[in-house]
This record gives sequence, structure tokens and C-alpha cells, in this order.
Amino acid sequence: MPLEQAEIKARLARLTRALSLQGLDAALIRYPLNIFYFTGTFADGHLVVTSRGQAYLLVYRTFERAKEEALISEVVSFRSLKALPRFLEDLQLKRLGLEEDRLPVSVYRSYQHLLKNFELLDLSPVLREIRAQKSPYEVACLRKAAQMLAEAIETVLPRFKPGLTELEMAGLLEAELRRRGHPAYTRTYAFHQELAYGHLLTGWAAAIPSYLTTGQGGQGILGFPQGPSFKTFQLNELLLIDYAGWFEGYLVDQSRLFFAGNLPKETFESFQRLRTLLETLEDGLRPGVTAEEIYYLAQEQAKVLGLSPCFMAHGEEKVPFVGHGVGLEIDEWPPIAPRVRIPLKEGMVIALEPKCHLPGRGVIGLEDTFLITSQGAERLTLSPRELRRLKP
Amino acid sequence: MPLEQAEIKARLARLTRALSLQGLDAALIRYPLNIFYFTGTFADGHLVVTSRGQAYLLVYRTFERAKEEALISEVVSFRSLKALPRFLEDLQLKRLGLEEDRLPVSVYRSYQHLLKNFELLDLSPVLREIRAQKSPYEVACLRKAAQMLAEAIETVLPRFKPGLTELEMAGLLEAELRRRGHPAYTRTYAFHQELAYGHLLTGWAAAIPSYLTTGQGGQGILGFPQGPSFKTFQLNELLLIDYAGWFEGYLVDQSRLFFAGNLPKETFESFQRLRTLLETLEDGLRPGVTAEEIYYLAQEQAKVLGLSPCFMAHGEEKVPFVGHGVGLEIDEWPPIAPRVRIPLKEGMVIALEPKCHLPGRGVIGLEDTFLITSQGAERLTLSPRELRRLKP
Repeated sequence: MPLEQAEIKARLARLTRALSLQGLDAALIRYPLNIFYFTGTFADGHLVVTSRGQAYLLVYRTFERAKEEALISEVVSFRSLKALPRFLEDLQLKRLGLEEDRLPVSVYRSYQHLLKNFELLDLSPVLREIRAQKSPYEVACLRKAAQMLAEAIETVLPRFKPGLTELEMAGLLEAELRRRGHPAYTRTYAFHQELAYGHLLTGWAAAIPSYLTTGQGGQGILGFPQGPSFKTFQLNELLLIDYAGWFEGYLVDQSRLFFAGNLPKETFESFQRLRTLLETLEDGLRPGVTAEEIYYLAQEQAKVLGLSPCFMAHGEEKVPFVGHGVGLEIDEWPPIAPRVRIPLKEGMVIALEPKCHLPGRGVIGLEDTFLITSQGAERLTLSPRELRRLKP
Repeated sequence: MPLEQAEIKARLARLTRALSLQGLDAALIRYPLNIFYFTGTFADGHLVVTSRGQAYLLVYRTFERAKEEALISEVVSFRSLKALPRFLEDLQLKRLGLEEDRLPVSVYRSYQHLLKNFELLDLSPVLREIRAQKSPYEVACLRKAAQMLAEAIETVLPRFKPGLTELEMAGLLEAELRRRGHPAYTRTYAFHQELAYGHLLTGWAAAIPSYLTTGQGGQGILGFPQGPSFKTFQLNELLLIDYAGWFEGYLVDQSRLFFAGNLPKETFESFQRLRTLLETLEDGLRPGVTAEEIYYLAQEQAKVLGLSPCFMAHGEEKVPFVGHGVGLEIDEWPPIAPRVRIPLKEGMVIALEPKCHLPGRGVIGLEDTFLITSQGAERLTLSPRELRRLKP
């Protein structure tokens, strides 16, 4: 299923409608990922989309490649930023929406100066809401991302043994993802988030918190204090693989647990309770339910299942969500978190990751990515939902 | 050589002096990498450094880890942003420097609202200049990063054969880097730049331009149009490895060329000319010379050596630099580019990457990372500066 002109047209039509509703004359889009979403190509430049439905891609670099790849007709070589006001005036545009969630203040100041005869408003909420609802093409990409991740994990599992470091195991898994077309890059949305492929963590190291807004932290290394470390995987320890699959820009998020040797009975019991909790949340995911309601459902079920003290918490410090949207970025709209009173809609794609943090012992939990349909949630991620023993 | 309190003290002293010079009462630092630079720990929070030399780390997440890791004494759990104005008032601060190059407009607006009784100014130039001059500790880290990269390349070279895809070879090299402690993440400074580990490109694919400000582009994959692709490495083709080594947060940048089979004599000749050009630039790198002068020296030497049409250019589209600072980020201050009339200083670390782009054929060139000393440039990157034939 290739990315086609009809897909791009439909996305632009949704933007055009949203611009009219917001009273904006045009979107002035600068962030390359958003340019890709609306044109099919990345470019260093500007995408102008008007409320009358016109779309112009003004390219600094590289014009040739953008011209060849873009699925819109108006692709213009545009090397001087100074010519931008005139271009916008000629289209009789006045109220412009800019990506305030993306533009650094230093870049925005140059627009304030350059576009002083225009009214500059925030386009961020419009863009994140449009991108949150996925098309059939996007869902097809997400399914392939899920398949890539599941295949890479199954391929590499026989090579995972006690005695390897977290970093060694991460490298092996990532080489399998890489050869299947992973860019070794995971796009994030929120300010100052950083993520490599994901988190491969063993035993107690999984319960080390980090400063990031992720399901778990990990020791990491000096200068990158999250994810895999030089810690060696031990017999009778848990192995957590919280990784993102990728296909043509689209990400799915999945966490699975493995172990070598044996585990205490209570670990299996806790895992089973978290799996039950995830199934309950999955049943709750349907159009009209708010993100906040799913969050509170998780908290309530954790209480019912006797998981409360460790649920989404490193001791005093809470993990402030139980899931998040996912798509071109790993943390898309909406977060499944308190005060997010956004009703879920058909086509939204949500990762849920109920987890228990046991300081000194590790993290128990699962994560799957779901598509919201009129019938409820459909699971996209494919790895078996088991706590699996590695073959010795 | 561990990161020690004396190192952090010296960095804070430089910031304090710069604040006084700029007439700022304090720096209000929010970007975790800058917090790490001045404290030794990453945190979701604020670092307040006053022109009187006080430093306070106010932590949202995670307090315990920040408290343990920080090499400054004042680490405070600070969970309410609303308490920030009072905290700053109690210190009698008025003129605050913020990271305008890092803060998105949407985040900055919340500071404008919250800190309306303060004067908010731009701290970016101060921070990038401080970070550009490396200490002996930082240079020791950069040396280890160079060693990691050289070792990983030598280890993996015997496995590189025609018939492998660029992505497969990238995965093999990256697994070697990963087990040596690479976080699978390369930090970038400029707005909207993205980079995985680097670029491993073969034959003509190396000459495909991308929208990014990098020495070369590559085909990449749909959704990530740069770097390695599914293209297969062929006999008698060039293999370009432009990768960053890493150690405890610090990066060095290096490009080397390899081939399998045979190459035309002209390729060796072109390589030799680019090597001569790099040696000339290396001789020119010394305190007091400006970044722009090095850039124009490269252009002039390219003319002398008969490389002009292809030098740092994809046809009509120029690569607008010939080098860049490197450190905690791959594109630090200063860029070696036109209009950058910044004199180089002792302790700056600069990557130079003279390259020729031959559309349909590939990229020929080299890159090394240099430390500026009072005596001139010292090369930090370690791989042999040859165009090397892979063993069949």
C-alpha cells in the first residue's frame, strides 16, 4: 500500500477545514515531519496551506528531491526567506497558524520580525488533533511496524543468554530491526524527550527511574541516563523489552517480559494481574470515552488487583500516565493521563502500558498498541502476551 | 578520569562571569543537556545559576536520582512551577537568561505568563560559547569516543562484503558501538536536524542529497530520507562511513572511505586531493583564525586542486559549510561557514569534512575531529586516513 496522492489530498482537506473553523487564513508549516505528513516529502522549507485549499511547498533544500517526492503539484524553489512576506501577501493571507510546539523562540523571533504585518497564531492543537486520527493507509503502516518488531524479537531471542550485557542484547535486537528498515531513530513530540529504539532492561535495573516521561527508566550510561547499561543479564532475572517497531515513518510501541532460569511464583501472579488490568483497559478503549477516564480506570483496577503501591510509581515518584497516542512520533496525542478530557475517536491509535515498579527487583508489566474502532479496541502489536522463558 | 566536582565548579564559574558581563542576574536553565553540563546529572526541572555564583537545581523528576548524581550541593525537590517566581524573588533576581534556542514557543509562553514580573532575555549565545571551549576532562572523553569508533570499525570491517545492504552493514557496526557503550542516540543542536549514528552509504547512494545540513544525505527509507537504505553494496563501489563515536556524552565525528574490488585511478587521485585539502585546512586551524576564513580557505584550495564543481555541492545545491564544532552535540558552535566571523580559540573542537559530491557516482572525502591548541590543530579521530580496500 504505497503513500498516494489521494491520501495526501484527504489530509490537506482536513487541515483546510480545521483552518476555516479556527478562523485562520493559512498554515505556515516549518517542521519537516509535518511537511512530510501533508506532502509525502521532507524538506527544509515552508509548506503554506490556505483555508481555500491551496498548498505550496517552498523549498530551500533540497528542491530536486522534494519536487520528485512530493505528492502535491506546487513545489517551488524558494531560497530567500525575505521573499516570504510578499508571497503570503500575494495570496491575500493575514492570519497565519505557526507550530508553536515546535519552533524554538529564537526561530519564532525571526518570523515575528519578518511577518510583522501578519497575525501569528498557534497551529499546534490543530495539527496534533489531525495527526491523532489515522487513515487506513496509516493503520496499514502501523500493522507492518508491529510485524517488523515481533519478527525481530523472535529472531533474536535464541541469542539472548545470561552473561550478556543489556547493551549487547540491545545491539543484537537493533541490528535485526535495522536490516528490516529501522532508521535507528525514534521521533518524540514532547519538549526535551529523548529515546533511542526503546528500553531493553534486566532485573533491578528496570526499576531505576529516569528524568524522562517514559514507562520505565533504566541505568543507561553516563551522558544518557536511561535504557540499556553495562549491567549483565543474570539467571532468574526478568528481561524487559519495551521497543518501537517502525514502518515508513510509523511507530508502534510494545513491552514484553522474558526470563532465563526460574522466577518466584509471585512474579507470575503479578504479571497475570497486570495482564488482567491491560485487558480491562482494552475493553474500555472505545470512541467517546475520555483519555482521563482510561487513566482513572487503570488506577482503580490497580487498587482492586492489589497493585496500587507499585503501580506506575517509582516509590514517591509517579509515572504520570498509563498510555499515549502513537504514530509518526512515539508520544502523540492524546496522553492517557489526568486532566486530558479528550474523548477518544475512531482511528486514534493508543499504546497502553500498565506497569509495576518494584525498587531493587524490576518492572512487571506489558504494553500494546491499539486502534480505536467503532467496535472498540483492536490490538495492533503482535508478540505473544506471555511472560516467556528463554531457551537455555 | 571521572567527572568531578572541580570540573563542574569551573564550568559554573565561567557561566557566572558571563552572566555578569551580559548584565544578567541569573540563568534559568531548562534543557536537560545543559543541566547535565553544569551539574553532572540530567533532570526534568530548572537549574538557577546567579551572577553571584549560587547554583540551585530544582527538580520535578527524578529528585532521588538527581540528588545522588549531582555534583552541586543545592538540589531541591520542586514539584510546583507556581512556586518558581517566589523562589527567584527571594534570591532578588530580576533579569533572567533563558534558552531561546531550545525552548519551544509554547513552553516559553508559560514562562512569560508565570514570570511577568521578571525581565526575560536570551541565554543561548552565552551557553553555546561556554560549551564550545572544552576542558581537559572533556578532551579526555573525546579521545575515548574516537577510540571507541576506530575500534568498532576495525572489528566490523572483515564482515563487510558486497551483497550486504547498507542497513545490514549499519546494524553490524552499530551493534559493535552499542556494546562499547553507545546510547544509539546522537544529539543535534540546530532546529529540526535529525541524525541516527551517522551515515553508512555505498556508491551512488552517497551522492543523493537530503534536506538536512549534513556532509552528505543518502537515500534512507520512506519516512527517514537520509542515511543507509536497502541498497546493496556492490563490488567496485565506494563505502562511506561517516559516524560519530561516543563516550560519556561526548561525540567525535569521522568519515572514512573503503571499497571492495577495484576503483578507477581517478577515484584514488580525487581522494588524494581531498586528503591534501584536509591537511591544508588542518594546518590553518589555530587560535585567532575565524571560522569563515577556514571555510574560504577550503573553497580556494578546492579551486586550486581542481575540485570546485563537485566540492561541497549536490549539483546546484551547496552544502553550506565545511565543518562544525562537536562535543555534547554533533553540530556545536561554531559552524565553519560563511559569515561566521568568530575567532577560533584554544580548547575548541572542530570537525572538518571536505567532500566531493559526484552525482550518480558517490561522495569522495574525509572527516576528522580536531582540538585547537596553542600550537595548532591536534587530530583526535584515529582511523587510518587511507582509502582502504576491504579483504575479499
